[in-house]
Amino acid sequence: MILLAKKKINKICLIVTKGTLDMAYPPLMIAAGAAAAGTEVHVFCTFWGLNILRKGGAESLQISPVGKPEMPKPDFLPFSMPNIVSVLPGMTPMATWMMKGKIKKIGMATIPELIKSAHEMGVHFHACTPTMELLQCPKEDLIPEVEDCIGVAGFLELAADSDLTLFI
Amino acid sequence: MILLAKKKINKICLIVTKGTLDMAYPPLMIAAGAAAAGTEVHVFCTFWGLNILRKGGAESLQISPVGKPEMPKPDFLPFSMPNIVSVLPGMTPMATWMMKGKIKKIGMATIPELIKSAHEMGVHFHACTPTMELLQCPKEDLIPEVEDCIGVAGFLELAADSDLTLFI
Amino acid sequence: MILLAKKKINKICLIVTKGTLDMAYPPLMIAAGAAAAGTEVHVFCTFWGLNILRKGGAESLQISPVGKPEMPKPDFLPFSMPNIVSVLPGMTPMATWMMKGKIKKIGMATIPELIKSAHEMGVHFHACTPTMELLQCPKEDLIPEVEDCIGVAGFLELAADSDLTLFI
Repeated sequence: MILLAKKKINKICLIVTKGTLDMAYPPLMIAAGAAAAGTEVHVFCTFWGLNILRKGGAESLQISPVGKPEMPKPDFLPFSMPNIVSVLPGMTPMATWMMKGKIKKIGMATIPELIKSAHEMGVHFHACTPTMELLQCPKEDLIPEVEDCIGVAGFLELAADSDLTLFI
Repeated sequence: MILLAKKKINKICLIVTKGTLDMAYPPLMIAAGAAAAGTEVHVFCTFWGLNILRKGGAESLQISPVGKPEMPKPDFLPFSMPNIVSVLPGMTPMATWMMKGKIKKIGMATIPELIKSAHEMGVHFHACTPTMELLQCPKEDLIPEVEDCIGVAGFLELAADSDLTLFI
Repeated sequence: MILLAKKKINKICLIVTKGTLDMAYPPLMIAAGAAAAGTEVHVFCTFWGLNILRKGGAESLQISPVGKPEMPKPDFLPFSMPNIVSVLPGMTPMATWMMKGKIKKIGMATIPELIKSAHEMGVHFHACTPTMELLQCPKEDLIPEVEDCIGVAGFLELAADSDLTLFI
């Protein structure tokens, strides 16, 4: 008799291509959650996702309210922020500040905290070499948590024996 | 002799993070299509994707033309909508109305219809607990099609034995 | 004794839903890189991703700086481009021109070049039938590299025996 055990995720590979405050959360929460459960996790940051691995980058991620009808209305307004207001100077920092406030209020970690704890739990961070060239970001501008700089071939090798690979 | 049959997708897990009219279609069309073929489908709505599961949310998804050069030009204009016009009040509802018109014209289902039929075909909808806190959306504000509220650990368990997991 | 060799990716399926200059790169670089390593690659273009397969589409992909705090500041400015400036006419072409300049400077291929070389290495390009209807794009408006037009069922069949499926 063959016993079919429930499958387990042994290795996860996440490709991070977004560099905004909101879209930095999903990969880092999945990475931290999976690493806490003993899974080997690889985070490959490419294109705008490289922002997360830049020195000072994780601290200064922003979110712009422009062209984002999916964002909730500000608490002080009875309606959604109109785009004609959202484009005014200061509105991106304000939206960022408001989102950070909500995150703090519910006790969620900040992005730099998530990177630090993920790294401590053994999550591997990889920077994308062609993106570093494109965005003129040499290795010394990356945070020390970065393990190495790899390209598409390196990423495909990581993904080859991963049980779960997500493009974020 | 061992016969290697063509692999079949038995279980799909979709992570929905976008809450706009356009990006709500891909996950729901995949979910409905796969469920119709007998596949077990799980839709995990997190971040802006929670909008889809809010009462009245699916009906009021919008699309903003601002900063979206990929969108087709309006039928009444010989050129793409310039951003300086797209930011004017009323342009997001207009773009939404235009897209809904095109969708209706080709006989595609609306998002609320897709949710209803997917649910009837057995698609499981899961809401993300931390997102519900973040967006101040208690369980009673979610549509009855939502099966339960889970976090990262719950999602990873769903993904563990899925044959296909997509981050949308 | 059974020797467990390191797993190999034999087949990749990429769902391309974005139609901007920046987001066209990740799928095409993965496709070209994987095909060069002998992997069977399928690229399924749906929603805004159909832009890439339109005649003249790959040449005219754009990137708008509006509402994108993740984009680097222009070289001629000491600070990020404010949204109030980004919405002005001509700024989307300018941002596109600047990004193309950086891409050229580091010797990266253009999108049309990537499509051509990917196709020559055997990458299969599939257009999404419902999207063609939605965006009023008949088969004759698609580039000759397109192999066929398929829907959700066709995509699920491609994904069924893929070792890696990414939603981009």
